[in-house]
Amino acid sequence: MIPFNKPYLTGKEAHYMYDAVYTGKLSGNGKFTKKCQHFFESNYGFRKCLLTTSCTDALEMAAILADIQPGDEVIMPSYTFVSTSNAFVLRGAHIRFADSRKDHPGIDEDSIESLITQKTKAIVPVHYAGVGCDMEKIMSIANKHNLLVIEDAAQAIDSYFTFSDGTKKALGSIGHLAAFSFHETKNIISGEGGLLAINDDRFSKRAEIIWEKGTNRSAFFRGEVDKYGWVDIGSSFLPSETIAAFLWAQLENLENIQEKRIAIWDQYYSGLKEWAENRNVRLPFVPHFATNNAHMFYLVCESVEQRTEIIERLKSKSVSAVFHYLSLHKSPFYQSKHDGRELSMSDFYSECLVRLPMYYELTEDNIDLIIGNITR
Amino acid sequence: MIPFNKPYLTGKEAHYMYDAVYTGKLSGNGKFTKKCQHFFESNYGFRKCLLTTSCTDALEMAAILADIQPGDEVIMPSYTFVSTSNAFVLRGAHIRFADSRKDHPGIDEDSIESLITQKTKAIVPVHYAGVGCDMEKIMSIANKHNLLVIEDAAQAIDSYFTFSDGTKKALGSIGHLAAFSFHETKNIISGEGGLLAINDDRFSKRAEIIWEKGTNRSAFFRGEVDKYGWVDIGSSFLPSETIAAFLWAQLENLENIQEKRIAIWDQYYSGLKEWAENRNVRLPFVPHFATNNAHMFYLVCESVEQRTEIIERLKSKSVSAVFHYLSLHKSPFYQSKHDGRELSMSDFYSECLVRLPMYYELTEDNIDLIIGNITR
Repeated sequence: MIPFNKPYLTGKEAHYMYDAVYTGKLSGNGKFTKKCQHFFESNYGFRKCLLTTSCTDALEMAAILADIQPGDEVIMPSYTFVSTSNAFVLRGAHIRFADSRKDHPGIDEDSIESLITQKTKAIVPVHYAGVGCDMEKIMSIANKHNLLVIEDAAQAIDSYFTFSDGTKKALGSIGHLAAFSFHETKNIISGEGGLLAINDDRFSKRAEIIWEKGTNRSAFFRGEVDKYGWVDIGSSFLPSETIAAFLWAQLENLENIQEKRIAIWDQYYSGLKEWAENRNVRLPFVPHFATNNAHMFYLVCESVEQRTEIIERLKSKSVSAVFHYLSLHKSPFYQSKHDGRELSMSDFYSECLVRLPMYYELTEDNIDLIIGNITR
Repeated sequence: MIPFNKPYLTGKEAHYMYDAVYTGKLSGNGKFTKKCQHFFESNYGFRKCLLTTSCTDALEMAAILADIQPGDEVIMPSYTFVSTSNAFVLRGAHIRFADSRKDHPGIDEDSIESLITQKTKAIVPVHYAGVGCDMEKIMSIANKHNLLVIEDAAQAIDSYFTFSDGTKKALGSIGHLAAFSFHETKNIISGEGGLLAINDDRFSKRAEIIWEKGTNRSAFFRGEVDKYGWVDIGSSFLPSETIAAFLWAQLENLENIQEKRIAIWDQYYSGLKEWAENRNVRLPFVPHFATNNAHMFYLVCESVEQRTEIIERLKSKSVSAVFHYLSLHKSPFYQSKHDGRELSMSDFYSECLVRLPMYYELTEDNIDLIIGNITR
């Protein structure tokens, strides 16, 4: 049996969790939380980082920080996870769904501007498979219309965008805010877990307050106020120290994990390239401005029938390959709220994209077997 | 140094977390989550239970299930934690704060009915210190006015309410919904963590959907639908399996933990009774219908000066005694939204209540020392 995903353990997770447990600091914002946050700030140039219980929660914090009010509009791709949209719908937003690019499932940047109205408050690009959207184009549109950009970087840890002047920046460091996931299916994991990156200083103070349940507790502990109380809306967004301890073990091994995943990805790519070209099946595309963090290896089939056939064939060999999102604009929850525009690429990826097993412990033999069963 | 709180470890926490880590199921809703949920359902008569990342999140789920809309009113005590109110304010609710009882900090049940308007949607009693509110009175008011009752049972694990006909029910099993906390300061802990108890079957299905990010994923895995998608608002409310594993170690030792805490509480009570009576200081009061789960031992001083003197005196002996909530109706965030009613008992407890150290490993000698320093 080759599963679709298998969480990878570096070996230190239990040790650090044990450390957190026996030092007696179990609730959030302890030693390991601070270590992890510092790691992200110093390695990726995020201005300020706050760990969260999930990427969903990081997106919800972003929606609160963006001050989304009922009736405000938010632009995002339809081909994404429900949390991208739910976070904003919870604040009363109306979602204007954009289509995906023809060459990969990320948002079609050229379609964004036509979706902007007087009510638009934010653009939420999703870096699908860890491959960056054209952030230069998106930031330029946002600046022109005075909109916020919130990067859904759930899959995009350790991936980069290169601007036309050659400047290279980490995904998640470009938008005003960005959300990452450490769910067990991601490159770097903590079970459930996430991170909010705050790149615009205007939001730093409020982010801390919202994270601490709407109180100015952090300012109190820094001695800036003499008692702390309820000053804003907020929630309990911070994870237990044990979760941060787990994450720390992963971060210490980030380079090694990334190297291994990229090797797996490369083996898939070279083994499937010729077959795919001959069958009009597409392999993952990485635009010139983006990097590949090897979060995912997928095929885009010609048709849903072809995809079903490949999934079934692999299943018969005990290999689990799985499809991905279903267009949110056609979901039971949102179809009646959507404005009726056709989003054909989003529907196409919903029907034709299939993800292959992708995890650290996948062996060369495993991959050869999978490739062999696809190309035979 | 005698701290105010020290998280107690039964010794099995790291073992079970290790188990969760090495079985490779790290995200939520795995074996330990199910074990914990089943424990609560079968031991306390909660109809359906869902673990959450915090009590705050359980309250937020309750607010969504109660279908709180902008402008709806919710009644709760002013003397409570910010999350009790924030959860509903996030959904647009206006909070009608009630005063506390004269004999203990719980909501003054007799004041509730006068706060009900056409817009009232729910009553949120808070079982302060794990001591039940008069749930018979509250349920009767709620039934008369067709309101929902959401028990904030953050501190109330393993505590009970006895109805006038002699029926005894666990706190959290009486209201339509109830929220518990497993924050490291509680009797039973998981670092950060919480639980939503759903006692009204009308909410069961939707609760599961909201918990699973607004998708019908659970129904899909039970084979009730053939694919799952976005069907409702929701969030990522479920905790990592490692958190549930930690909690399971605590639940296995619940009886022992409770026995020990009650012994500590009793030692405080008998050692301080006479002194308190002579000084017009009040010790915790447990109404005839309630039980004491020994979550907290507190003194209600005559004045803020007396409280400050006691806190300072204990501090000089390296004992950490701490005050508690500040009236939410007077908070920076809500004072301008409050309707101006005086809530004098809430203010009184804000100024005069002090909590004494309370944790499993507190020794008899520790307690004697604390009592000696208070009564000297």
